[in-house]
Amino acid sequence: MPTPLVLHPDRLLPIEPAARDVARRLYAQVRALPIISPHGHTDPAWFATNDAFTDPAALLITPDHYLLRMLYSQGVSLEQLGVAPLDGGDCERDPRKIWQRFAAHWHLFRGTPSRTWLDWVFSELFDLRVRLEPATADHYYDHIAARLAEAEFRPRALFQRFGIEALATTESPLDPLPHHRAIRASGWRGRVITAFRPDPVVDPEYDGFGAKLIELGNITGEDTSRYAGYLAALRARRRFFADNGATSTDHGHPSAATADLDDDTAAALYSRVRDGAASAVDCELFRAHMLTVMAGMSVEDGLVMQLHPGSWRNHNVSLHARFGRDKGADIPVRTEYVRALKPLLDRYGNDRRLTLILFTLDESTYARELAPLAGHYPALKLGPAWWFHDSPEGMRRLRRQTTETAGFYNTVGFNDDTRAFCSIPARHDVARRIDCGYLAELVVAHQLDEDEAAELAIDLSYTLVKRAYRL
Amino acid sequence: MPTPLVLHPDRLLPIEPAARDVARRLYAQVRALPIISPHGHTDPAWFATNDAFTDPAALLITPDHYLLRMLYSQGVSLEQLGVAPLDGGDCERDPRKIWQRFAAHWHLFRGTPSRTWLDWVFSELFDLRVRLEPATADHYYDHIAARLAEAEFRPRALFQRFGIEALATTESPLDPLPHHRAIRASGWRGRVITAFRPDPVVDPEYDGFGAKLIELGNITGEDTSRYAGYLAALRARRRFFADNGATSTDHGHPSAATADLDDDTAAALYSRVRDGAASAVDCELFRAHMLTVMAGMSVEDGLVMQLHPGSWRNHNVSLHARFGRDKGADIPVRTEYVRALKPLLDRYGNDRRLTLILFTLDESTYARELAPLAGHYPALKLGPAWWFHDSPEGMRRLRRQTTETAGFYNTVGFNDDTRAFCSIPARHDVARRIDCGYLAELVVAHQLDEDEAAELAIDLSYTLVKRAYRL
Amino acid sequence: MPTPLVLHPDRLLPIEPAARDVARRLYAQVRALPIISPHGHTDPAWFATNDAFTDPAALLITPDHYLLRMLYSQGVSLEQLGVAPLDGGDCERDPRKIWQRFAAHWHLFRGTPSRTWLDWVFSELFDLRVRLEPATADHYYDHIAARLAEAEFRPRALFQRFGIEALATTESPLDPLPHHRAIRASGWRGRVITAFRPDPVVDPEYDGFGAKLIELGNITGEDTSRYAGYLAALRARRRFFADNGATSTDHGHPSAATADLDDDTAAALYSRVRDGAASAVDCELFRAHMLTVMAGMSVEDGLVMQLHPGSWRNHNVSLHARFGRDKGADIPVRTEYVRALKPLLDRYGNDRRLTLILFTLDESTYARELAPLAGHYPALKLGPAWWFHDSPEGMRRLRRQTTETAGFYNTVGFNDDTRAFCSIPARHDVARRIDCGYLAELVVAHQLDEDEAAELAIDLSYTLVKRAYRL
Repeated sequence: MPTPLVLHPDRLLPIEPAARDVARRLYAQVRALPIISPHGHTDPAWFATNDAFTDPAALLITPDHYLLRMLYSQGVSLEQLGVAPLDGGDCERDPRKIWQRFAAHWHLFRGTPSRTWLDWVFSELFDLRVRLEPATADHYYDHIAARLAEAEFRPRALFQRFGIEALATTESPLDPLPHHRAIRASGWRGRVITAFRPDPVVDPEYDGFGAKLIELGNITGEDTSRYAGYLAALRARRRFFADNGATSTDHGHPSAATADLDDDTAAALYSRVRDGAASAVDCELFRAHMLTVMAGMSVEDGLVMQLHPGSWRNHNVSLHARFGRDKGADIPVRTEYVRALKPLLDRYGNDRRLTLILFTLDESTYARELAPLAGHYPALKLGPAWWFHDSPEGMRRLRRQTTETAGFYNTVGFNDDTRAFCSIPARHDVARRIDCGYLAELVVAHQLDEDEAAELAIDLSYTLVKRAYRL
Repeated sequence: MPTPLVLHPDRLLPIEPAARDVARRLYAQVRALPIISPHGHTDPAWFATNDAFTDPAALLITPDHYLLRMLYSQGVSLEQLGVAPLDGGDCERDPRKIWQRFAAHWHLFRGTPSRTWLDWVFSELFDLRVRLEPATADHYYDHIAARLAEAEFRPRALFQRFGIEALATTESPLDPLPHHRAIRASGWRGRVITAFRPDPVVDPEYDGFGAKLIELGNITGEDTSRYAGYLAALRARRRFFADNGATSTDHGHPSAATADLDDDTAAALYSRVRDGAASAVDCELFRAHMLTVMAGMSVEDGLVMQLHPGSWRNHNVSLHARFGRDKGADIPVRTEYVRALKPLLDRYGNDRRLTLILFTLDESTYARELAPLAGHYPALKLGPAWWFHDSPEGMRRLRRQTTETAGFYNTVGFNDDTRAFCSIPARHDVARRIDCGYLAELVVAHQLDEDEAAELAIDLSYTLVKRAYRL
Repeated sequence: MPTPLVLHPDRLLPIEPAARDVARRLYAQVRALPIISPHGHTDPAWFATNDAFTDPAALLITPDHYLLRMLYSQGVSLEQLGVAPLDGGDCERDPRKIWQRFAAHWHLFRGTPSRTWLDWVFSELFDLRVRLEPATADHYYDHIAARLAEAEFRPRALFQRFGIEALATTESPLDPLPHHRAIRASGWRGRVITAFRPDPVVDPEYDGFGAKLIELGNITGEDTSRYAGYLAALRARRRFFADNGATSTDHGHPSAATADLDDDTAAALYSRVRDGAASAVDCELFRAHMLTVMAGMSVEDGLVMQLHPGSWRNHNVSLHARFGRDKGADIPVRTEYVRALKPLLDRYGNDRRLTLILFTLDESTYARELAPLAGHYPALKLGPAWWFHDSPEGMRRLRRQTTETAGFYNTVGFNDDTRAFCSIPARHDVARRIDCGYLAELVVAHQLDEDEAAELAIDLSYTLVKRAYRL
C-alpha cells in the first residue's frame, strides 16, 4: 500500500501558529509572482530546439550533482547512475534501472533540499500522488516518461508554465551563443538571456587556458598575445554578450582576492600567464587583478558583476580523472573578503555605477564581513544563500546573520543557480516561503508592521532581483 | 493618513505563548532596574554644561555611524547628511533637510536594531504617535525640536529620566578630563565617570603617536623618551583617571595579540616605535606587549581591563581621506584568541585580582574560543554582544553559543557602547528583553526553574555588570 | 524549605505544542533503546573489579573536568576540590567538604549541560527529590554515599541498569589490557571493549615518546628502531586490541593534517622523531603521515577510524605544571579539513572498506567543510557534536548545519565521550530528546512525514552508531 504524497500548503512556514498565520498572508501575495532567474546553468539548447526531454533519469538524476554526491557518499557508483567514464568505460544505460536505483536510496535525502525540490516536481509538475519508494519506482518512471512525451512538457511550455519572466544561462566568452541567437530568431517570447562567465580566459589554471586565449584573439580579431589586445578582446566579447541579452558577468574564483596592478606590471604578468610560465602565486595575482579590471569594464558597460568564490573544485582527484568536472566533488573552503576585496573597493567601491554581488560558501563571513561591507559600500550587494546553503536553514541563517547590519535592501532577493530546470519553481517557492516566514517572525515579535512585511515580501521575491540585475 | 506608531509591550519577547508568558514575568522584574553603562562614547561635555541639544539631526542622525553607513550604502552621500568634508567642502547645513532625507530612507532600516532603538526614542522619549515617513518628517522635526528646547530634555534631566546609575565615557590618556572635573565640581549627583583608553599612546600606528608620547611626558613630568619613563607616565595617568572615577581601561586593537617581552627587549622596541622607525611587525609586537603590561598595571591598581579587537578601521580609503574617522567604514576581521592571548594568560590568567573582559566582532569564536577560555581562566570574563552584534539576533547568538560552556556567571551582563545618548535606555531595554526571552525558553524547556531564571534576569540586567566593572 | 527537584517528562523537547506532541511520540519509541557507547573514557578497572565507588565527590566531582573548569573559572582552587598537586602539596581530603563546596557553587552551572546531566543523576539514579543547594548538600552527600554502598550501585549493576549494550574505553597501544581480559575471563556478560588510541606512540610531542617507542618494540618483539619495525609493531598492537574487542581506533591530533609520504621519506622522518631530533614541523608532518598510514591499516584490518582534532591541550601552563593533564584547560582552536585531509582522501577516500569518523570543536566547519566532505566521500562519516558542543544547543547546531548537505545517513548517531560513568544515560537521553525534537520540527514544517521521522529517530539513537562502529 503506497504512502500518499501530499505537499502541505503550509510547508516550510513557521511552526508557531501566530507566525504561521502572518506568513500565510505574506506568502499568498508572492506565491504566484513571476520568477526572475538571473543566474543559473540550464542549457539554452533546450529552449532553442524545444525538443522533448528524453527520459526521467536523464532529466532528473544524471545531471544533478546534489543527487550524485549523496548517492556516491553512500556507496552507489557513478557508473550505476548512468555517468559515463571519460575513458569510455561502461556504465548503466537503462534509464529505468537508474531510476529504480535512485528510488531505493530516496530515504538518504530526508531532511535535504533535494527532497523538498523533487517532491515539488513529483507532486506539482507530474501530479504524482504516492511517495517515491522501491515499490512505486516503476509507476513513477512510467508516469514521468509518458508526461515527457507530451507537448506541454517541452522546455518552452514548461518555461511558461513556471511563470518565468527572465532566465539567464551562463556561457564562456568563447561561446558564439548560437542557441540564444536561435531563440531570438525563433520569435518565441520567452526571455532567455546569457551571462558572461570569463573564467576560461581569465583563470590561468583553467584547462587549456593558453589555447583559449588564442581562440579569443581569433574570434575578436584582437591581438591577444599582448595585454592591451587581450583587454580589447574581453571588451568586445562583453559587448557581444550584452547584445545577446546579458546584463551580468559571473566570476568563479578560488578566493575573493583582488588586486589593482599598474599597466606595465599587469602586461608583464599577462605575458607569463599567456606563456604558461606563471607560478601559482602569479595565477592568483592575475585572477585578482582581472577582477578589478572587470569591475572597471562593468562601470563602463553597465554589466552587473557577480563573484562566487571559495570552492575547491574537483577535490576528489580520482573521481575527477575518471569522470571529469561537476560530479559533486567541489568542496567549500574558508574565504576572506575584507582584505581580499580592498584593492577593488579602493578603486570602485564608492562608484554607484558598479553593482558587485557577493556570494559565499563560508557562512562565518555573513555577519562578520559581508553584511558590514555591503552595509557600507555603495557598489556592493549581497547575493542569496548559495549552493550548499540554498536550503531552508541556509536561507534563515543568511537573513538572521545579515539583516541587522545590511538590512534587506542591500540584498538582491533570490536566484536559483541550478542546471535542474524542473527544480526552478520549487527553489523559488522555498525561498519565498522562508523569507515570508522570517518576515512573519519579525511581525509577531513586533519588530516590523505587517504592511511593511508585505512590501518586503514582494521586494525579496521579485523587485530587488529585477532591479539588481537590471532586468 | 499616517500609520500609528505603537511599541507593543511584548516586542522582542519569544513568540511562543508559553515562553512569552514566562518572559513577561521575568521582564516585569527588570524593566525598571537602574542602568549601568560602564562602556560608551557619549560626550562628557553634555553633562558638564547641560546645554540643550541643538536640533533633531545633530542629536540623532549626523553622529550615528549606524545610520550613516546604511544611508551611504544606498547612495546617499555623507554631505547630504550634514557631514562636513575635512577640506572645508560644502555640505547640507539645514537640519530639517537632513531630517527629511533621513525620513525618505527610513524603510532601509527595517529589520535592523537602529529601527528598534529609534522607534523607542520616537515613541517613549518624544511621545510621537505616528510612524516616520516622508509625510510625517516635518511633524517629527518640529515636535522633536520643540522638545529639545524644554528643560526636561537637557542632558542631565535625560540622564535621570533614563534611570542611569553610572555612565562611563572613554578618554585618551592625554585628556585633562575637564568635563568630568566640572561635573564633580558642579554638585550634580549623576555618576558620569571616565574610562582609560590608552590606544593613542600605545598604538604606534595611531595618528601623531610620537608627538603624543612627548605630550604624555609633559603632562606627567616623566621622561617618555625612555621606556621606564613611559611606563611611569602611563601609571600616573591611570591614577589620574581612577581619581576621576574611572574603574576600567579599554583597548581597541586590530588583533588580540599579546606578548610578554623582557625589559631590555621591550625598551629597545620602545625606542624604535618612539622614533617612528618601527616596522608593521614591530608595531603589532609593541601593542601586544603593552596589553600584558597593562594587565600587570591592572593587577596593581585594580582597573578592570577591556579588550575590543578585530576591527579594520577606516577601510574605505577615499571616504577616510575626505571625512576622517568613525563614519561607518570600520569592518570586522577574523580574530583569533587562543594563541593570541596566551602570553598574557601565562602571566596573569590565574590571577584573581585581574578582570579582563573580552569582546569580539567574530562570532565564530564564541563557542570555539571565548566560552572555553572564559569558562576556565579566573581572570577572564565575556563581554556582551558588541557593535554589529548588539542586536536581537546577535544577543541570542551570544547566549546560545556561550552559555553551555561558560555559563552566565562568566559574562558581565550588558553594556551599550554608544555615542547615541538617547538610545541608551532603548539598548538596555532590548538586552533585557532578549535575555529574559532566552531564560524563558530554558524555563519552558524545563532546563531551569523559574525562580532561578528570575534571579538570573536581575543578575544579567544589573548585578553582574556592576560587579564586573567594580561600580 | 528545600525546592523540589523534578525532571519534567518533556524537558528539552521543542516548546511549540504541535512540535512537542510529535517529539513526545518519537521519543517514546527511543527512550528505552539500548545504549551504544563506542567512544569514551571510563575506567575498565571498574568493571573488572566491580568494587563500590568510594564516595560522592570521587565519583561525581573530582574526575569531571567540566565541573573543575567552571568552578576554577569562578575562583575555586583545584586543591579545594580535592585535586592533588603533582608536587605532593596539600589538598582537600574530606569528600563531604568538597561536596559542600560544590553545592555552594551549583548555581554556576545554570544553563549548562553539566546541570542537565547531574540533575538526571540526582533524580533518576539516586532518587533525590530536592534541589541541590547549600542547605541540602549534606542530605545529598549522605544519601548518595549510602546508595554507593549498596550492591545495585556497583559498576556492573549500573552498567546493566543503564541498558548499555556495548561500551568502549580508550587505551594506549602499550596497555596490556588487563582489565578487559579480566572482564572477559570473569564470565560477566557486559560488553566492555577497548579502542586503540595510538597518540602516545604516534605523536612525537607526547611525553616520553622515545621511551614509549622502545617499550612498543619490547612488547611486540619488533625492531622499532626502524620504520618498518615500527609499522609492524603498530599492526601487532592493533591485532591485539581487536582480539580484545576493539572495533575502532581514535586519533587526537592538534590539527586534521594528513600526509602521504613515500617510504624512504617516511623512514628518514621516523629516524628524526625517534631520536628526538625533530622540529615542530617534522612532528606535525609525522603525525599527518601516520594518519594516512593508520587509514591504510584500517582498510586492512577493518578497525573504524576516529579523528578528534583541534584541541590545544594544557593551555594553562602553570595549572598544567601543578596538576598535570585533563584538568579543564584544553581549548579548541580553528581547524581546517578540506586541505588537511586531502592526502589521506586522495589515497583512501573512495575506499568503501574504510570508515573515518570526523569530529570537530570548530563548528564553523560543519556546513562549510564537514558536511560537504561527508556528503561526498564514501569513506567519511560525521561524528556527533563533541565535547563543548555535546549539549542541547550544540546538537541542534550540528543537525541544522549538516543535515541539508550530508543528510542523516552520513552521520553516526550519538556517542558520549565521557569518563563520568553515571552521566552516560543522561547524555544519551539528551541526544535522543534533541534529535527527536529536530525531527519533530521537520514533521510539523511538513518537510518529513512522521513515519519517516519515527524510523530516523531509531536510526539516530541506535542503528547508525551500531553500524558505523561495526558493533
